[in-house]
Amino acid sequence: MRANVPDIKYLFEPRSVAVIGASQDTTKLGFHVTDNIVSGGYQGSVYPINPRGGEICGRRAYKSIEDVDDEVDLVSIVVPAKFVYEAVQSCARKKAKFVSIITSGFAEVGNVEEEQKIVACARENGMRIQGPNIFGIYSCVSSLNATFSSGSPEPGSVAIITQSGALGLGMIGKTAIEHLGLSCIVSVGNKSDLDEADLLEYLIPQEQTKLIFMYIEGVQNGEKLIRVLSAATREKPVIVLKSGRSERGAIAAASHTGSLAGSDDVFDAIMRQCGVLRAECVKEGFDWCKFIANSPAPAGENTVIITNGGGIGVMATDASEKYSVSLYDDAAVLKEAFTAVTPDFGSTKNPVDITGQAGPKEYNLSLDTALKHPDMHAVMSLYCETAVFDAESLYTMIKENARKYRAGQKPLVFAAFGGRKSEDCIARCREQSIPVFNDVYEAVSCMGALYRYNKYRTNTSDSAASAKLDIPAIEAIARRAVQQNRFFLLANEAQTIMKIAGVEIPRSSVARNLDEAVRCSEDIGYPVVMKVVSKDIIHKSDAGGVALDLENRNEVIDAYQAIMHNCKAHNPSAFIEGVEIAEMVKPGTELIIGARRDATFGPIVMVGLGGIYVEVMKDVTFRSFPLDRREVMNMIKEIRSYPLLLGVRGEEKKDIDGVADMIIESC
Amino acid sequence: MRANVPDIKYLFEPRSVAVIGASQDTTKLGFHVTDNIVSGGYQGSVYPINPRGGEICGRRAYKSIEDVDDEVDLVSIVVPAKFVYEAVQSCARKKAKFVSIITSGFAEVGNVEEEQKIVACARENGMRIQGPNIFGIYSCVSSLNATFSSGSPEPGSVAIITQSGALGLGMIGKTAIEHLGLSCIVSVGNKSDLDEADLLEYLIPQEQTKLIFMYIEGVQNGEKLIRVLSAATREKPVIVLKSGRSERGAIAAASHTGSLAGSDDVFDAIMRQCGVLRAECVKEGFDWCKFIANSPAPAGENTVIITNGGGIGVMATDASEKYSVSLYDDAAVLKEAFTAVTPDFGSTKNPVDITGQAGPKEYNLSLDTALKHPDMHAVMSLYCETAVFDAESLYTMIKENARKYRAGQKPLVFAAFGGRKSEDCIARCREQSIPVFNDVYEAVSCMGALYRYNKYRTNTSDSAASAKLDIPAIEAIARRAVQQNRFFLLANEAQTIMKIAGVEIPRSSVARNLDEAVRCSEDIGYPVVMKVVSKDIIHKSDAGGVALDLENRNEVIDAYQAIMHNCKAHNPSAFIEGVEIAEMVKPGTELIIGARRDATFGPIVMVGLGGIYVEVMKDVTFRSFPLDRREVMNMIKEIRSYPLLLGVRGEEKKDIDGVADMIIESC
Repeated sequence: MRANVPDIKYLFEPRSVAVIGASQDTTKLGFHVTDNIVSGGYQGSVYPINPRGGEICGRRAYKSIEDVDDEVDLVSIVVPAKFVYEAVQSCARKKAKFVSIITSGFAEVGNVEEEQKIVACARENGMRIQGPNIFGIYSCVSSLNATFSSGSPEPGSVAIITQSGALGLGMIGKTAIEHLGLSCIVSVGNKSDLDEADLLEYLIPQEQTKLIFMYIEGVQNGEKLIRVLSAATREKPVIVLKSGRSERGAIAAASHTGSLAGSDDVFDAIMRQCGVLRAECVKEGFDWCKFIANSPAPAGENTVIITNGGGIGVMATDASEKYSVSLYDDAAVLKEAFTAVTPDFGSTKNPVDITGQAGPKEYNLSLDTALKHPDMHAVMSLYCETAVFDAESLYTMIKENARKYRAGQKPLVFAAFGGRKSEDCIARCREQSIPVFNDVYEAVSCMGALYRYNKYRTNTSDSAASAKLDIPAIEAIARRAVQQNRFFLLANEAQTIMKIAGVEIPRSSVARNLDEAVRCSEDIGYPVVMKVVSKDIIHKSDAGGVALDLENRNEVIDAYQAIMHNCKAHNPSAFIEGVEIAEMVKPGTELIIGARRDATFGPIVMVGLGGIYVEVMKDVTFRSFPLDRREVMNMIKEIRSYPLLLGVRGEEKKDIDGVADMIIESC
Repeated sequence: MRANVPDIKYLFEPRSVAVIGASQDTTKLGFHVTDNIVSGGYQGSVYPINPRGGEICGRRAYKSIEDVDDEVDLVSIVVPAKFVYEAVQSCARKKAKFVSIITSGFAEVGNVEEEQKIVACARENGMRIQGPNIFGIYSCVSSLNATFSSGSPEPGSVAIITQSGALGLGMIGKTAIEHLGLSCIVSVGNKSDLDEADLLEYLIPQEQTKLIFMYIEGVQNGEKLIRVLSAATREKPVIVLKSGRSERGAIAAASHTGSLAGSDDVFDAIMRQCGVLRAECVKEGFDWCKFIANSPAPAGENTVIITNGGGIGVMATDASEKYSVSLYDDAAVLKEAFTAVTPDFGSTKNPVDITGQAGPKEYNLSLDTALKHPDMHAVMSLYCETAVFDAESLYTMIKENARKYRAGQKPLVFAAFGGRKSEDCIARCREQSIPVFNDVYEAVSCMGALYRYNKYRTNTSDSAASAKLDIPAIEAIARRAVQQNRFFLLANEAQTIMKIAGVEIPRSSVARNLDEAVRCSEDIGYPVVMKVVSKDIIHKSDAGGVALDLENRNEVIDAYQAIMHNCKAHNPSAFIEGVEIAEMVKPGTELIIGARRDATFGPIVMVGLGGIYVEVMKDVTFRSFPLDRREVMNMIKEIRSYPLLLGVRGEEKKDIDGVADMIIESC
């Protein structure tokens, strides 16, 4: 039985926090958690719980949580694993709302039963569990640092949800030195009760959070995650780093948090479908956070590169192709706009090369020009170290322009390549949350991620296409096969299902004798195909039971007799019901469309290049249901062999709309 | 006329250097170059040249280079472009050996003629030109800094050759703050005379240089570069960063240094063939430099990951797949080796997770175990920030183990993820040239690059396969076509060339009349194909001049008559020589093999998946000639659809050796 669940906001904004296992011993986690709460400036009530009572971190310690004469919204548990269940029971009696179990030694080491007991107790009593096997929770809005981290997170607008506790602690350190401010960082650990999706539900409307970063090793309830992620990305960018991409990495992840990673291709496609930006490594993810959290959205696709070095300009151009950043290329407009700041040996083409002679004045002028120009929507400003700038002017130039672009609602990213001067400038800008990178690829990657998100957000629609299928009829066919102990469908059963699903298949009918075979052939129109129909003959070709390309009555007669002869020779006891006559279809471009119920994500559809190439080229793409027509078209366009459908070498364009219809109608 | 050229060593190890355009004015490049030479500790003679004479940077200045009473090995020219030719002439009269023209304003801005005049003058007088449009040369072995860089490079073992001057100056700054020591850094600029290959020839045997890094925008003499690069990679690793990878980037490169980038696919394949490691961005290239320049070569492929964090272990595993690092996976051996240092909730599987409880002692023990184990060949040691280490112990642990592994000739790379403690440790290690990275992907990428190079070096062979072809016979056919103003070959001409090249083609012969057609068909054996032979009919199918799958005498007779009728109807004035009868080949896996003379790299061979997929999937790979059988097999294995050749879905293995033979024999 599950009691009513408390509002998730009391996890992030508790009015009171108790620590079961609080301690004065500075070598214990119970000290660090209590100390972080108290010294972090938390404004609610703090109740250290320790059987010895006394005072801990300047607060009165209670012998039991039940002695506390106040409602307790959040309890942090840091006692050894064997005492956790008891502690949870006392929380239940106290009617606490959220229990954050930092202690490890549960499902992740095979101790599944104990964990289940704890969750059952919480459910019965209307409590929710975070963890176990976590570092706790930091929530900026209530100045709550209920973690055992050694440093303090810097307040800001990025929310982090992490499955790995150790990595999360590393992230607290890393974000602090990179001045990436956090609105919260929460570890989900074993996800015995609360999972990423539950936390996302709080973060979606939360004002302080401008961007969400998630580290995931494995997903349990994929359908719920899809639902919540899709809602989240409509409000704010979500960046996901999922490890266990590789086969071997997935095995390692399973032995780390017991997660089943599932197919990375499916995960990847679904994240794209949900509008999530998927980062490959922490560095890339944090770079995106730094840039996107502080950038306005671009109003269009025209990006301009301004550089004082030809070489880095060329590299940024390469990177733009890699990260799908569109470079503005109206040469006449560019020339008019940038001639005044570009020496003869520079270039007004994009990349705009204002040359190594460019100082602050030239940068300011070109950046102003691009900011004011209605057809230029975003700028990547590159700097290669020269003697023309002193470090102070470089810093001022970057800071001033970053401010102006933010005010003017245009994205601007900087890269500075060089020695001490550049690095010092980057460090100073970082303190002001101005994204400056020391490699052009990093800068362009950020701009690309911003565009990807923006494109998703502006194109997304709410209407999912769906078709009304006669499900009972399909189920009846499947049931009959199962009753007959068959794990395959007969040809005519499969055809019936295809018809119900609205999938066009070659015209065909079954003939019981030679006369009928001839009649059917003439009805369908030559050329036709003939195949034996018999429950006893599954592999028809092997039995000589197939004849192709029959062009006239005589050929049909010959084929019928040959098939009967072959099949009887092949299996003298086979009961032959007749032959199937079907339209002979011309060779074309083979596609494969598949659907299955994924263990993690539920109903999944696949489309790709068919035939023998599907296995070798693995040119397929996935989506979860439901999906609208735009998304179906996106998925078809994603396959590498899409140009084949458009028609290559003068071939006609294939019926792409028909393929889209088929996917939508049969779903 | 070209006089004898001086030994390239006098560019890097000149006994005397003159600076034409030396100046006391600190705002002038002529001051900075002279000052850098003098204050950089150059031990040879320095001759500032300035029409006003006097003293510059504490050295006597000469009014003309011709006044210097000494041999001059290297002259650095920093006067304005219009005075450069005159200066070069005076160098010629002085019989200087090398002239380093820093001045820009030549071919890169269209001033090609002036540049050619300068080169011609140098060639006539046995001088060589570096540049123009460069920052100069720094050479550690002679403590020579003849550049106008504002900082000084740190001495070391990495040689840098860069086409872009601005980027090169940035690199001087960047390598200095990253403590990446340089044996030299040279800018080639417009490559009017000296190019990368010339400089490589000096660097190959040079002892101080352990690794070579090159930044390239465009290649002029590709065949020479291939020759020298192949020789270089046998001695030491070469890392190439080539920009202009993308189509648009190539255009930008062309307008930067006037380079024609050529096909990036071809460039990429040739670099691989030469054993070059190709970096995508400066950051990646420098990371590889830092690691590989200081690492012993691995004795085998078994890499072990040791980590205190499960999450970063999983990410390193993913990265290992991405960068082709083989993880050791003998579970029994790993268990025996690491049980002592791994708590129950850790993992002795690879990644070996010694858990967040691991301190210096546990790291030292596990690293020692791996170092001593004969079956473990390389280690990636990961650290996720915890409270168990103080910063000092972390630094000591990394330094000590780096030392032991170097002494023990096993590669070891570190990653440290976290806040202040990790970053400080990384900074201190960097000063000691110990490669520690703050993202696991960067660490694994380095290990992958080391393995790629090592694999190349241990597998490379000198023997290039080559076949004797009857070239004059092939040329005669081509010549005849040209004489007849044809830009295509007739079918029988193409067939003859295929036969000369030893390429197997379907059996066929030409029949002049119906009787011959029947006779040929019976000789070849049914089924056969029939095609019209006529100079006047190029598009045979359109004219109804082709019949496929003729299975017997009657079908041959019918087809002959139909073809004659169709072709006469199609073009009444066509002169029809007869019909070609050919073996009807069964459908198979289509491959494409091509060869051409590349404008940059000379003879190039291509192999890939044929048919309509070649254009869409772009599944082709390239090599330059000559190439041995091992390299031919490598190239075939590189195509993504290689598994098709091995046979999928129970198909037979294709004749891969036959394909290799064909490539070798027809070259």
